[in-house]
Amino acid sequence: MSQQNLESLDVAAIREEFPILEREFDGQQVVYLDNAATTQTPDPVVDAMSDYYREYNANIHRGIHHLSQEASVAYEEAHDRVADFIGADGREEVIFTKNTTESENLVAYAWGLNELEPDDRVVLTEMEHHASLVTWQQIAHQTGADVEYIRVDDDGRLDMDHARELIDDDAAIVSAVHVSNTLGTVNPVSELTELAHEHDAISVIDGAQAVPNRPVDVGEIDADFYAFSGHKMAGPTGIGVLYGKQDLLEEMDPYLYGGGMIRKVTFEESTWGDLPWKFEPGTPQIAEAVGLVAAIDWLEEIGMERIQAHEEEIARYAYERLEAEGDIEIYGPEPGPDRGGLVSFNVEGVHAHDLASIMNDHTIAVRAGDHCTQPLHDRLGVAASTRASFYVYNTKSEVDKLVAALDDARQLFS
Amino acid sequence: MSQQNLESLDVAAIREEFPILEREFDGQQVVYLDNAATTQTPDPVVDAMSDYYREYNANIHRGIHHLSQEASVAYEEAHDRVADFIGADGREEVIFTKNTTESENLVAYAWGLNELEPDDRVVLTEMEHHASLVTWQQIAHQTGADVEYIRVDDDGRLDMDHARELIDDDAAIVSAVHVSNTLGTVNPVSELTELAHEHDAISVIDGAQAVPNRPVDVGEIDADFYAFSGHKMAGPTGIGVLYGKQDLLEEMDPYLYGGGMIRKVTFEESTWGDLPWKFEPGTPQIAEAVGLVAAIDWLEEIGMERIQAHEEEIARYAYERLEAEGDIEIYGPEPGPDRGGLVSFNVEGVHAHDLASIMNDHTIAVRAGDHCTQPLHDRLGVAASTRASFYVYNTKSEVDKLVAALDDARQLFS
Repeated sequence: MSQQNLESLDVAAIREEFPILEREFDGQQVVYLDNAATTQTPDPVVDAMSDYYREYNANIHRGIHHLSQEASVAYEEAHDRVADFIGADGREEVIFTKNTTESENLVAYAWGLNELEPDDRVVLTEMEHHASLVTWQQIAHQTGADVEYIRVDDDGRLDMDHARELIDDDAAIVSAVHVSNTLGTVNPVSELTELAHEHDAISVIDGAQAVPNRPVDVGEIDADFYAFSGHKMAGPTGIGVLYGKQDLLEEMDPYLYGGGMIRKVTFEESTWGDLPWKFEPGTPQIAEAVGLVAAIDWLEEIGMERIQAHEEEIARYAYERLEAEGDIEIYGPEPGPDRGGLVSFNVEGVHAHDLASIMNDHTIAVRAGDHCTQPLHDRLGVAASTRASFYVYNTKSEVDKLVAALDDARQLFS
Repeated sequence: MSQQNLESLDVAAIREEFPILEREFDGQQVVYLDNAATTQTPDPVVDAMSDYYREYNANIHRGIHHLSQEASVAYEEAHDRVADFIGADGREEVIFTKNTTESENLVAYAWGLNELEPDDRVVLTEMEHHASLVTWQQIAHQTGADVEYIRVDDDGRLDMDHARELIDDDAAIVSAVHVSNTLGTVNPVSELTELAHEHDAISVIDGAQAVPNRPVDVGEIDADFYAFSGHKMAGPTGIGVLYGKQDLLEEMDPYLYGGGMIRKVTFEESTWGDLPWKFEPGTPQIAEAVGLVAAIDWLEEIGMERIQAHEEEIARYAYERLEAEGDIEIYGPEPGPDRGGLVSFNVEGVHAHDLASIMNDHTIAVRAGDHCTQPLHDRLGVAASTRASFYVYNTKSEVDKLVAALDDARQLFS
C-alpha cells in the first residue's frame, strides 16, 4: 500500500511551499531533520494567518460588528474542524490551549487536583515527555497520590504485563504518550485505555507526535483526554489542543479564570459558561486557530495515510543505513508498525551534542539532548541522544547526507 | 505639547499600513472603534511573523542547528525588548503568557495560592476586569481569604479614602486595573502600590488598556506584577506578558509544568530552571514573540507620547460630541489627565446591543455588552453599555460618523 502512495506523493512540489527549506548556510542547503521539535509551516498556513490580520482581525464572541462576526465564525468553526479531524463528537470536546503542555496541565489541574485522593495511583510510562511526567508528579505530590511508571523493555516497548499489574483498582489515571518523541515507539493506547476503563480510571494520551504524522481517531482509541500542538503539524506556534469527552468536561470546573468563560459574575461569585469556552478565558489564539485550520486542510489534502507511509519509509531507510554503520546505538523498536517517523541514536565515542554540532557544520538540523525525557535517558544509561525526525517534505537523499556526515564526527571526536 | 505632536502625526500614512481599514461592507468603509477589545495589526508586524515562518522557524532553547539558534536568539531577545519597553530590569522579569488573563492567573496560582492565608484580605476595585476579579475571587475561595472592592465614585474614579480603609495590615494583595476598559479611568496605581507596600501587601496591576496607549514604566509605578497583552497593542493574538519583580519570581514555584522549564527531572522529583523560562513550559509562542517585538518597534517609531495625545484628543472630541447630544449617559470621568482613549455610553431608550447593531449597519464597529465588567455594570445600574475605543489610526471624522448614526438608532428604537 505504502509503495503505491509514495509514488503519488510529489515531495518536490510539496517542498516548494516551504521557502525555509531553500535556505543556505555557508553555501549548503538546509537539511531539516528536527520535525519532532517543530515542523515547518507551508505558505498556505502562513498566508491564512496574514489574511486574518489583513482582512478580519477582531475580538470574538461578544462582538456585533462585521469583523467580529467573521472572526468569531472562523474561531468557533476551527473547533469543529479540529473535532472532525480527530474524530471528536463536536466543538464542545475541543479546547484550544497554548501548547500540548498546557493541555496536560489543564487535565492535571481541572480533573486531577479535584479528583485524586491520597494513595490513588497515577500510572505513567517510563517514556513520558516532561509535559506529562513533571505535571502529574507535581499534582500527585499535592494530592498525596502515588506515581508509578510502566517499564520500557530493552526493545523500547512498554512492558504490558507490568501495565496490567499497575493498572488495578487503585489506579485513577493512566497517562501515556501515543508515539514516543525519543524512541519512536507507537504505544498501544487503545489497550491502555481499555485497561484504565476496566478499573474506573481515566486515560490521558499525549498525541503530540501522533496527530501530525498518522490518522488519529480519539473515538476509536476511546481516550478520555487527548493532547497535541499546532506547531508540530505544519501549523503555527502558540496553539495546542485538548480533546476531552464531553461528560467529563461538563463535570469539571475551569482552572483558568477570566472573561469569555463565565455566565454570570457578581462581586461575590461567578458561574461558568458553556463548553468549550469555559476552558478558554481571555482573548484566545484567534489567528493561530485560523492557521491550525489551514494546516489541517493542507495535511488532509495530502492525506494522513500517505504522510504516515512517507515518514515511515524515510525513517526505516535512516534506521537501516545507521544500523549498517556498525558503531551506532539506535534506541527504540526496529522498523515496523509500532515505530513512527524518527530515529534517536548515539555514535560510539561521540557525544550527542558534538555530533549535532558537526551535523550543523553540514547544515543538517538534528536535535541533541534529552528530548524532555530525562528519566528515560537515565533508564537508557545515556545523558543524551541525537534525534533525526522526519516529515512529509524529507527525502532519502537527506538521510544520505546525514550518514555521510558521520565520518567527520568520528574523525574529530572518536 | 499634545497639539504640536498631533500636527506631526500623519494618520493617513499610518492607515496605509492597515489594509483592513480599507474594507467595505455594503459599499461603506469600516470605521473601527473597537480597539479596547483588540487593535488592528500593521503590515510590518504581520510581515515579521511571516518572515519568521519562512526564514527561521524552529524550536528554541535546546537546539544546536542554525535555525534553532536564530529562533532562540529572537525569542530570548524579545524578552529584553519588552523589558526595555516597560522599564523592567531585564529579561528575568518578563514572562510570556498566552494573554493578560493567563498573566493574572499565573500570579494568582504561583503567588496567591501559596501565600494567601485565611482572613487575609484581597483588595480589588469595583472596576476590575473579570480577568482579575473572577481569578482572585476563586483563589480567595480556595484559601479562605476575603475579597473587598475599592468603591468607584459617581464620577467613575476610585474612592481613595475607601482604598486607605481597605489597604491595612490585613491586606495581602492589591490588584487594580491601570486604565479601566469600561470607564476609561486612569487609576493612581503608583499611589495604590505605595499603600500596598506600606502594609507589606503586593500590588498586581492590569495594564491591558495602558501599555498600548501611553508610556508605562513599571519601575516608576513600583508594581510587583504588571500584566498586558500583545493583541491590544498592534501585536498578535496568542501572547501576553507578565512583568514581575525578580526577587518575587525567584521565590515562586511555577504553576504550569513541562519541558523547557526544568533543571533536573527524575522519576521521583523535579527542580526548576532559571527565570523567565521557569514560567514558560512547553514550546512557547515564538512567532508571536517576534510579532510583539515588531509591534513595539512600530509603536516606538511613532512614539508613545504622541499615541497617547492622539487618542486622548479623539476621545475628548467623542466625549464632547456625545455629551452635546443631550440624551446620552456617558460613564467615567470627564476628559482630563485621568481619562484614557475610550468612551462608554448609553442612549436614552435604546439598548446598547441595538445601538451597536445600528452602528454596524453603518459599518461602524463598536462594542456593546458588559465589557467583562459585569459587577461594575451592576453598580452603574445598567446591564450593558456601548463602547467606542480609539487607537492611533482613528480620526475625528470617524467620530462624526458615529454621532451621525445615532439618529437612526433613536428613530428605530426610542
